[in-house]
Amino acid sequence: MTTPPSPTVAPANGRLGVLTVGLGAVASTLIAGVELVKRGVSLPVGSLTQMGNIRLGKRTDKRSPLIKDFVPIATLDDIVFGAWDPFPDDAYVAATRAGVLEGGKHIEAISEALRDVRPMPAAFDREYVKRIDADNTMHTINKRDMLNAIRVDINRFREDKQVDRVVMLWAASTEIFIEPGPAHMSLDAFEAAIDANDHTIAPSMLYAYAAILEGVPFANGAPNLTVDIPALRDLAVEKKVPISGKDFKTGQTLIKTVIGPMLRARMLGLSGWYSTNILGNRDGEVLDDPDNFKTKEESKLGVLEHILDPVTFPDLYGDVYHKVRINYYPPRGDNKEGWDNIDLFGWLGYPMQLKIDFLCRDSILAAPLALDLVLFSDLAQRAGLSGIQEWLSFYYKAPMVAPGLHAEHDLFVQQSKLENTLRWMMGEDQITHLGREYYDEI
Amino acid sequence: MTTPPSPTVAPANGRLGVLTVGLGAVASTLIAGVELVKRGVSLPVGSLTQMGNIRLGKRTDKRSPLIKDFVPIATLDDIVFGAWDPFPDDAYVAATRAGVLEGGKHIEAISEALRDVRPMPAAFDREYVKRIDADNTMHTINKRDMLNAIRVDINRFREDKQVDRVVMLWAASTEIFIEPGPAHMSLDAFEAAIDANDHTIAPSMLYAYAAILEGVPFANGAPNLTVDIPALRDLAVEKKVPISGKDFKTGQTLIKTVIGPMLRARMLGLSGWYSTNILGNRDGEVLDDPDNFKTKEESKLGVLEHILDPVTFPDLYGDVYHKVRINYYPPRGDNKEGWDNIDLFGWLGYPMQLKIDFLCRDSILAAPLALDLVLFSDLAQRAGLSGIQEWLSFYYKAPMVAPGLHAEHDLFVQQSKLENTLRWMMGEDQITHLGREYYDEI
Amino acid sequence: MTTPPSPTVAPANGRLGVLTVGLGAVASTLIAGVELVKRGVSLPVGSLTQMGNIRLGKRTDKRSPLIKDFVPIATLDDIVFGAWDPFPDDAYVAATRAGVLEGGKHIEAISEALRDVRPMPAAFDREYVKRIDADNTMHTINKRDMLNAIRVDINRFREDKQVDRVVMLWAASTEIFIEPGPAHMSLDAFEAAIDANDHTIAPSMLYAYAAILEGVPFANGAPNLTVDIPALRDLAVEKKVPISGKDFKTGQTLIKTVIGPMLRARMLGLSGWYSTNILGNRDGEVLDDPDNFKTKEESKLGVLEHILDPVTFPDLYGDVYHKVRINYYPPRGDNKEGWDNIDLFGWLGYPMQLKIDFLCRDSILAAPLALDLVLFSDLAQRAGLSGIQEWLSFYYKAPMVAPGLHAEHDLFVQQSKLENTLRWMMGEDQITHLGREYYDEI
Amino acid sequence: MTTPPSPTVAPANGRLGVLTVGLGAVASTLIAGVELVKRGVSLPVGSLTQMGNIRLGKRTDKRSPLIKDFVPIATLDDIVFGAWDPFPDDAYVAATRAGVLEGGKHIEAISEALRDVRPMPAAFDREYVKRIDADNTMHTINKRDMLNAIRVDINRFREDKQVDRVVMLWAASTEIFIEPGPAHMSLDAFEAAIDANDHTIAPSMLYAYAAILEGVPFANGAPNLTVDIPALRDLAVEKKVPISGKDFKTGQTLIKTVIGPMLRARMLGLSGWYSTNILGNRDGEVLDDPDNFKTKEESKLGVLEHILDPVTFPDLYGDVYHKVRINYYPPRGDNKEGWDNIDLFGWLGYPMQLKIDFLCRDSILAAPLALDLVLFSDLAQRAGLSGIQEWLSFYYKAPMVAPGLHAEHDLFVQQSKLENTLRWMMGEDQITHLGREYYDEI
Repeated sequence: MTTPPSPTVAPANGRLGVLTVGLGAVASTLIAGVELVKRGVSLPVGSLTQMGNIRLGKRTDKRSPLIKDFVPIATLDDIVFGAWDPFPDDAYVAATRAGVLEGGKHIEAISEALRDVRPMPAAFDREYVKRIDADNTMHTINKRDMLNAIRVDINRFREDKQVDRVVMLWAASTEIFIEPGPAHMSLDAFEAAIDANDHTIAPSMLYAYAAILEGVPFANGAPNLTVDIPALRDLAVEKKVPISGKDFKTGQTLIKTVIGPMLRARMLGLSGWYSTNILGNRDGEVLDDPDNFKTKEESKLGVLEHILDPVTFPDLYGDVYHKVRINYYPPRGDNKEGWDNIDLFGWLGYPMQLKIDFLCRDSILAAPLALDLVLFSDLAQRAGLSGIQEWLSFYYKAPMVAPGLHAEHDLFVQQSKLENTLRWMMGEDQITHLGREYYDEI
Repeated sequence: MTTPPSPTVAPANGRLGVLTVGLGAVASTLIAGVELVKRGVSLPVGSLTQMGNIRLGKRTDKRSPLIKDFVPIATLDDIVFGAWDPFPDDAYVAATRAGVLEGGKHIEAISEALRDVRPMPAAFDREYVKRIDADNTMHTINKRDMLNAIRVDINRFREDKQVDRVVMLWAASTEIFIEPGPAHMSLDAFEAAIDANDHTIAPSMLYAYAAILEGVPFANGAPNLTVDIPALRDLAVEKKVPISGKDFKTGQTLIKTVIGPMLRARMLGLSGWYSTNILGNRDGEVLDDPDNFKTKEESKLGVLEHILDPVTFPDLYGDVYHKVRINYYPPRGDNKEGWDNIDLFGWLGYPMQLKIDFLCRDSILAAPLALDLVLFSDLAQRAGLSGIQEWLSFYYKAPMVAPGLHAEHDLFVQQSKLENTLRWMMGEDQITHLGREYYDEI
Repeated sequence: MTTPPSPTVAPANGRLGVLTVGLGAVASTLIAGVELVKRGVSLPVGSLTQMGNIRLGKRTDKRSPLIKDFVPIATLDDIVFGAWDPFPDDAYVAATRAGVLEGGKHIEAISEALRDVRPMPAAFDREYVKRIDADNTMHTINKRDMLNAIRVDINRFREDKQVDRVVMLWAASTEIFIEPGPAHMSLDAFEAAIDANDHTIAPSMLYAYAAILEGVPFANGAPNLTVDIPALRDLAVEKKVPISGKDFKTGQTLIKTVIGPMLRARMLGLSGWYSTNILGNRDGEVLDDPDNFKTKEESKLGVLEHILDPVTFPDLYGDVYHKVRINYYPPRGDNKEGWDNIDLFGWLGYPMQLKIDFLCRDSILAAPLALDLVLFSDLAQRAGLSGIQEWLSFYYKAPMVAPGLHAEHDLFVQQSKLENTLRWMMGEDQITHLGREYYDEI
Repeated sequence: MTTPPSPTVAPANGRLGVLTVGLGAVASTLIAGVELVKRGVSLPVGSLTQMGNIRLGKRTDKRSPLIKDFVPIATLDDIVFGAWDPFPDDAYVAATRAGVLEGGKHIEAISEALRDVRPMPAAFDREYVKRIDADNTMHTINKRDMLNAIRVDINRFREDKQVDRVVMLWAASTEIFIEPGPAHMSLDAFEAAIDANDHTIAPSMLYAYAAILEGVPFANGAPNLTVDIPALRDLAVEKKVPISGKDFKTGQTLIKTVIGPMLRARMLGLSGWYSTNILGNRDGEVLDDPDNFKTKEESKLGVLEHILDPVTFPDLYGDVYHKVRINYYPPRGDNKEGWDNIDLFGWLGYPMQLKIDFLCRDSILAAPLALDLVLFSDLAQRAGLSGIQEWLSFYYKAPMVAPGLHAEHDLFVQQSKLENTLRWMMGEDQITHLGREYYDEI
């Protein structure tokens, strides 16, 4: 297989507008963090674009530039934020309510910048998120009106803030479960369904559609279908707009896509995996509704199936009992705890157990992913890549892939894919880890 | 970087002799397992050579043969075992004492085959393993005599069992800590030190030296220096003998080389990692001696340092408090428990914790690695590879590498290296996960 | 408060019949264990009556006889077992299926004794336990017929086995949730409801009613209402029959009634307690049905409420988020795992966490409780005690108490109650731990 | 056994001086907490004297007054603090350095009160605590001079602060291990040893001796011998001074004295108990020295031995492998983590495991114990109790008891002892939990 020719990447000139759907815990943590980093108060820990490096050439070449010095991504100083949210709270109030950041040190210090981000009325329909009851909305559930209003918002934002490019990020609550249906199969059907106010057209799809129509890359941090339907995938290619999703890979699933590959790499068998989560933020509350949980569950369950490949390995993975629970548990707020019990077996079938308890923070893990997705989506657009960005799988629980392909869930395969894509973009050699050059036998 | 031409691999004709240094829990579990698998009673879970597959070509090609169908490795039916041990127990008694396997189902059923493996007197010097007091030894601590006796043993085994090729595996206790010194730097110095009964020439080095002299590949399952010294590394290249080591990567370190890379991949910071182990087998008893523990500790501590690269990332990994404890705890026997507490931090420095409790089984995890190393070392020899086999890093806590190279500890880098080496051996394309071919934008 | 006069306890002459409702994992483990202990093969670990001692007098008196030497309980040799079950398996088959005991060592060795215990057809109505589909039943769901048939069974058992006294134990699955209603309030109403085949009269109530009418003490190992209704409580007093319940206190709740009191003793606050259970036996399967789980949940949730007394301590316990989950998880069989996360707070409100993971065995923990309850219920009858035996609270998740009293859930209060009751029965001093006698100041 | 007559308790008139030896994390957390509670800012969670109640009479009497309303203890408003410390930091600086309390909310708010507590130069000899290098000392290691200087300090404090009564509390680091020897056996020998500067007379003994000579109750929060030697025990009785110790029972040992009794109550066997602790405060640093750790280890190990009584129960507790590790782990500061693995066994010997992870805070757990001990020691003196206060065992890892008695380590026996002592002091009935009065059978 020969490597295809590298693209030309346009420079990151001008200002980059970032529109988040949702101005809750994740978005306010993202915005506050970017402001704090810009002021040199804190570090953007967890962000590959800001802190990561990339090895180039041979191990002995010792060439490992920072990613931000290697590929032309936008700088934080050029970012301008905007948002929609059904709650009227500005980013200052949202950050304070979320309870993620320390008030004195991390909110008050940048209160003005946060106050400046005031949410536009959301394209919101409570049917899709029953546990949220809020009023900063477009006051319509007519889907055509919603679509048009979103497009108007995008253009007004462009003008008001004088941004040269825009990226849109879904950072709102998980919508109820919707299966891909006829309305999603072609642009014509999709258009007709909008006019018919079809139930299978969720608000998130209207945001994604508006984005693509406006030439705005779209990244989906929740497990909703949203942009992962044929109608929008095809349109994105046609309009040369990068899209990616679904569902930020943060706590327990992050661990799962690391431990799963370990079992698989070592050919250790698995009889059961029981995952329980407790969290007390708005996300936990929304997921306490079975309809919304189903969307999340699908996203979380598929991971093991794809990594372990039970069809090929029936003796090892053919009889796995996999269960995922999410429990709303208010005492912890945004601090999530994921507890995993894994029943594995080894040589001759002997059973072993692995227990993993991750005391993590939901929005702290998600914010740097959001930042990277914004910057890489913008980079992709300038590199002329369009449609599904599979190389961004690294960030997602349920990565979007080309039809007919299975998704790669293994975090390290995803990492190779991302890094080799960056190398390819910039005309550097692919890294395979073969490393015969260090040993000259034969 | 172009891929070098693939080697020609000689077929695996004839019988393969496997000589284990040590006939304790690991070796008896290996031998019993191979017998049970040959009889179809059990599965060789955990062994890549027996159960693993390898993807070839594009994802959509759906070509993923079993490794044992892809590369010409020896079959289990062609394996013949021999061993040295300071205890006179045959493999039946050793397996029974070890308490790893269920007596009725997994020992009695193959008692005859186990009875047949009777240990030759060991080249043993109690100075190097004080906690072991046993008498099935060569009754000499003269190093030259030991060396010669080992070579005689190898050749007698070859003849008695009529084997065509032999591989030697160190599956004995950890020796006391020895730093690389003058005696190890050249073959001349090494030879002179043998004659002088120099303390820095441990018995394990004599086994390795004898193996290389006899053209026998050597794999080192313990953290002792053994074959990882310039004198023997150079000789192995000269004699065209594959060597590899050190220290089977089984329980806690296996996890560490998976979680460490996850932190690194995601640029999550680390402030502390506390690892404690409890185990009650002979290994635990030997490691209760500080001199022997030091050897192990070095092997275990280096792992994080190399994965996290604190020099490049001082803000993330420059101040990590890493501590490893091993505690002899008799109630658990061969069933080991590794408990890890990991203090990490994310976006803006917010602290999180990860706790991992691995209730594992020492020899159950080690036996399939031992089998793979035997079969891959033999394969390497038939492929004309000599000296250090870095592609076998996947199996080791402290992988041997070419001078001047840093070792790769990341399990998934090691896995890529192993798989791409197999692909290269057989003339297949390297896999980079770039995958541009599935998307035809531009 | 003066201690009331001690009763006269009749000796344990003759044979004691034990009738278990249910011949599943718990009952077969109980029966097998008693047989193994009688033969000296194993120890009755976990049984206070068999292994426990009791301190008498001052600490310096060093008088601590075994309980079985102190109070006149029946010996194991005098016990004869009988059972009802909707499955036709005898105790040998039941023990084998349950997978609790090792076949060779603990089942085959006593196979004949186990084969001898063949279940009588059960008074079973699938409406109360939907997940069980079995056919060894009385083939009636007419409640009057059931009642009469149970009484006939008791008397036939008495005659066939020539037993002098009988105790009945509920060791069957949890029935669906039934709230105390009009039918339970008086004997007349209860009788009328039987004739009307009233849904609120569960089969377990008919067993309990039959037992009391036949002068047979009744102990209830499940959370069903059963004998804990006014009609039967009053009748038990009238008929001088000891009764007790509900729900064996084995794994997670046992821990809860030990850690809860610790928090309370130390005035440490509590903000949340999240309990999750995974188990894979028939009990787990039955509790996977929400109707049956509700019965269990009530039994498990009440515990903390009573121990922590939020009304008295609103600042410490007034806002506790307490959640209990039971998950059917087949890979583990009878081996249960209970994971608890406890969010507590201390001095000035600072938060702390406690995590408890109990890898236990359901029937192994329950069997000795069942044995003690049988022997102590029989003792109570010979001591002239009737009605509710609160001193047996020690064994139960939801102890029965006199109307108007709150139950004691603290394991150590329960232990004091049990031990001081035994002391009182035998005319020994109560122990208060005041201990002024060792210090003669003043 | 009849209850002895109750004492007369003098009222708590006037001011109570509290002298802490050590003004580190525990003392500064205590002092700050008392100030915050006095101002109504925070709650004294964890303190029985401040928040606890006590049941009186029958369960149905519903009489459960707060302890502070039931017994005449000093109020917080009457407390005045003083301290010695080898570091010159005042309580404000000490609290800030300790990192236990939040600066803004819990230190700045009361900074003046904290600034007022400035440590007197300590009677300090580095030989006993090698890891501490500080200079606010009496500049003598002559023991007689130390003793006299401490007495002078006590009297100056009395006068300066105009306090009516004084209590002394050891809240300093653990001294090195000292075995009881000839110098401790009588007052004469003790006096002679002081003059001889005998190594076995540790500074803590001089503090305790000075306290008793000055009529000041002494409570020992560390595991040092200190006041637990015949010479001082006898003197305390003679001088009518209450004394108590040793070693605050806070994190892991608190759990152990709750879970140990559970096993014992239920006659569950134990094969191993492995305890590991990680903590990063000054206490952790001091205990990293093997000589100081030995003192702590003895205190921690004895607990199980006494609770489980292996002599009486050789089958259950005769072969327990008990190991305690403390590891200095700076990333966590004052936040301690105790991880326990418990290998238990039940019915017929089947093994089970219990794992407990306690993420606690050292000083937050210790401060309320310190407060209770101060107030109860003062109460004891006013009640005419002298010498060892065994009823305060509840607070200690290694409780002091009368010669010839074994200590009670079971937290709930200790709780009964404490509560029944309070009832006895105030002329209330002892509570035995017999509770026959609620059931009128017979």
